[in-house]
Formats: sequence, C-alpha cells, structure tokens
Amino acid sequence: MKSHTHYLWFDTAKHRQYINITREVAEQVKASGIKEGFCLVSAMHITASVFVNDNESGLLQDIDDWLEEMAPYKQDYRHHATGESNGDSHLKNLLMHHQVVLPITKGKLDLGPWQAIFYGEFDGQRRKRAVIKILGE
Amino acid sequence: MKSHTHYLWFDTAKHRQYINITREVAEQVKASGIKEGFCLVSAMHITASVFVNDNESGLLQDIDDWLEEMAPYKQDYRHHATGESNGDSHLKNLLMHHQVVLPITKGKLDLGPWQAIFYGEFDGQRRKRAVIKILGE
Amino acid sequence: MKSHTHYLWFDTAKHRQYINITREVAEQVKASGIKEGFCLVSAMHITASVFVNDNESGLLQDIDDWLEEMAPYKQDYRHHATGESNGDSHLKNLLMHHQVVLPITKGKLDLGPWQAIFYGEFDGQRRKRAVIKILGE
Repeated sequence: MKSHTHYLWFDTAKHRQYINITREVAEQVKASGIKEGFCLVSAMHITASVFVNDNESGLLQDIDDWLEEMAPYKQDYRHHATGESNGDSHLKNLLMHHQVVLPITKGKLDLGPWQAIFYGEFDGQRRKRAVIKILGE
Repeated sequence: MKSHTHYLWFDTAKHRQYINITREVAEQVKASGIKEGFCLVSAMHITASVFVNDNESGLLQDIDDWLEEMAPYKQDYRHHATGESNGDSHLKNLLMHHQVVLPITKGKLDLGPWQAIFYGEFDGQRRKRAVIKILGE
Repeated sequence: MKSHTHYLWFDTAKHRQYINITREVAEQVKASGIKEGFCLVSAMHITASVFVNDNESGLLQDIDDWLEEMAPYKQDYRHHATGESNGDSHLKNLLMHHQVVLPITKGKLDLGPWQAIFYGEFDGQRRKRAVIKILGE
C-alpha cells in the first residue's frame, strides 16, 4: 500500500468563488504513482467546500444564486454573537459538503466525461487550504 | 492490498427515478474477495446521485417532491444559455451528492438494518453509469 | 495494510441533538496504530448524520433552525402511511449526509484548526450507532 499527501492553498479575490482544481488533483494522482486507489480531496475549513460538477460558467453562477437562496446571508444568526458574520458560509458548506472521494483506475482519476472537481469558497479573501490524500497500490 | 472495479449502467424509463442498487453492490463486494475495506459507489454524471436511505416507496416519493421544491425545474437558469434544459438536475445532484463510501467488515457491507443504497437519476432516459470501486484486504 | 473497526453508540436525551465525537474518533485513530490512511465515520441509520463543522453552540442552534426550515416536520409525508412520523428526519439526513472520510497523516486526524466531527441525531431518544472504520498502513 502506498499513500501520498499534498496541500492546496487558496487566497481568493472574492468572498465567494469557485475554482476548478481538476488539473491540480490529476497532477497529484500522477505524482503518487498509485494505479488503483482512492483520492480524497477535503477542505480544511468549515466555510468552504469541495464538490464535483460541470465546468460551465453559467451553471457556476446558478449554483451561487441557489446557495444564497438556500442559506442566505443575514445578520441575525446566533453564531454572530461570537463576533463572526459568516453564519451563512457555514450553512453553505454543510449543503455542499467539504469533501469528495474520487476513484483512481489504471493510474488516472476515473471520472465521467463532464465531471470536474471544484473548491468552493464561501468566506474568502484569506489564506485557506484543502488536503489531497491518495491511498492505493 | 486488493482492489476491485465494476461499472453499473442505467437507462431509466423516467426523467427522474430512484433505483435500489444494494444487491448489485453487495455482489461486487463478494466478487472482490475483500474482507476488510471501503466500497466507493459514485455516479459518473453531474445530474445523478448515489445515496443511502430507506427502501420505502412513500418516502422515495417524498424525497422526489422535496427535491423539486428545493431545486425546482425552471426555464431561466443561466446554464440553459448553452442549450441545456437541466439546470435543476445539477442542483438536485449537488443537494443529494454523487457518492457514498461504505464500510466492508468480515466480507460484507457493514450497513445498519434499514440502510439501502440508491442510484438517483435526475436527467434520465439516456444511458448513464456509476462506478463501484473496492479497496481493502 | 491494516484496518480497524469500532462502533459508537448513542442514546440521545432529545429528539434532535448534535454530539461532538472528535475525541472518540481521535482515540480510535490512535488505537488503530495507522499512520497514513482514511478514517470513515458513518451513521448506521437513515435519520442521523455525521458531519464536520465548528464546535460553537450558537452555530449548532443555527444549523438546527435551518434544518427545520429546509426539511420541516409535517404530518402529511407519504412515508407516514407506514405508521412512522419521521419523514422530516429522513430529509434532514439526506441534506446533511450520513458520513465523512477523514485523512490520517503521521498518525493523527489531519483536520483544519476549527474542524470538529459531529453525530447529528434527527430522530433520537432510542439506541443508535455509527461505525468508525480506519484503513491504512
């Protein structure tokens, strides 16, 4: 059994932002030398997400609109009594989840033709990271 | 360490459909010969889901109603500028997630008594697939 | 390759309750002796969740309010024709998901500074469990 660990760092220009990390993940799969295994990609924060969907700019904007509708910014979250103002970012994270596990087959990410991997930032403009961890043989 | 990979194909009669795949997944666990490990079941599309819940027909209809309420079909998604009409199917996929990781203990899926595995199709009537990938010893 | 399996039991005082299980999970990682690997924590029920977020009491109450708004208790779920009254608990489970996969690096849970692991109960006051399964070397 082999394992491989890599951290991706992000410092987004916007408060909410969606970054295609498919190429970075594929590079780590290659670097790992693992032919059959699992690749975990997991945000290390509680206001960010990792998800798989279509790399289409209109859809990414639809997703952002939908998240704001489902878990809107508002002032009166109880969490804000701590001095924070990002209650909605936590709820958006729970809705989208913070991680995916991707299959590796014959040395490559075994994704469908339209599946791209995204880091979704819901409370950005600060330095944050995700971990890529690969396990296999 | 051993690994085992299998693809399940679907060609649903309906646009949205929920298919119990617990038996098919259990068969692959048996075929793998793996006694202790993880079984990843992951849709290879961005408008389909794999999830675990109760195999009860009323509940499956409740889930479908709820998904349509949470991520309704509508014409004005930005994604539709590409010629697609399935913006809602993408959002339903994000809400339900496209994958699960199941524990394997003593050669069997280590599920609770009511846990069944479903493939959830949100844009069907075409040929689509999911990957089952098992890792362990 | 090594594996380690442990079951956590819960018998909540309340119908809905959020229990920080980070310490229990970390203890099993230590007990496993695994230095590099994955730790799956998965509810064995279809009305309970395992998720990662902030251990802040105001936020946990915000999450509970939000879940009730997104998937409210009501009498007329089709599922209730079976004699059950927990349709909303199933939907809350689907929204929050029943499992997480956590990276293990250098013998420890490789979590960000604010990431805590929770068992979320949506139909409690009865004996239920989650499985912790660790795979690695």
